[in-house]
Amino acid sequence: MARARVHITFKEGILDPQGKTVLRALKSLGYDEVEELRVGKYMELELAGEDRARLEERLGEMCEKLLANPIIEDYDLEVDA
Amino acid sequence: MARARVHITFKEGILDPQGKTVLRALKSLGYDEVEELRVGKYMELELAGEDRARLEERLGEMCEKLLANPIIEDYDLEVDA
Repeated sequence: MARARVHITFKEGILDPQGKTVLRALKSLGYDEVEELRVGKYMELELAGEDRARLEERLGEMCEKLLANPIIEDYDLEVDA
Repeated sequence: MARARVHITFKEGILDPQGKTVLRALKSLGYDEVEELRVGKYMELELAGEDRARLEERLGEMCEKLLANPIIEDYDLEVDA
């Protein structure tokens, strides 16, 4: 059994309207120190198997096919095996 | 200027229907090794200031008030100052 984490963020240059909205809301609450905010997705997984290289390869495929949209998003994965 | 990261995840015992849906979709694509999947939020921030303890305190407030729902979500924050 391995645990894995995936971070999915918009690529540089892709607009992040949700992040802009949250940033504006924080400023309206007085948190003027926040200069930039980007929202991404985060997933925690449990994977059967012990072969870390193989699990990373499979998880990369899952990101390409389903978890992320590789046209506009970057993903970063970590597997603890 | 400091960079910060916030992870927001459902508390233990809170249902995660989005995670369950993604898990089912992965299994239908043949990724049977995925035994559990939970979806959270991830935010990257840029904050004005250098006082790390102060920035962490302020960011904790932002999580309590706006970024997370402390009734059902946990948050974890890191500030590099």
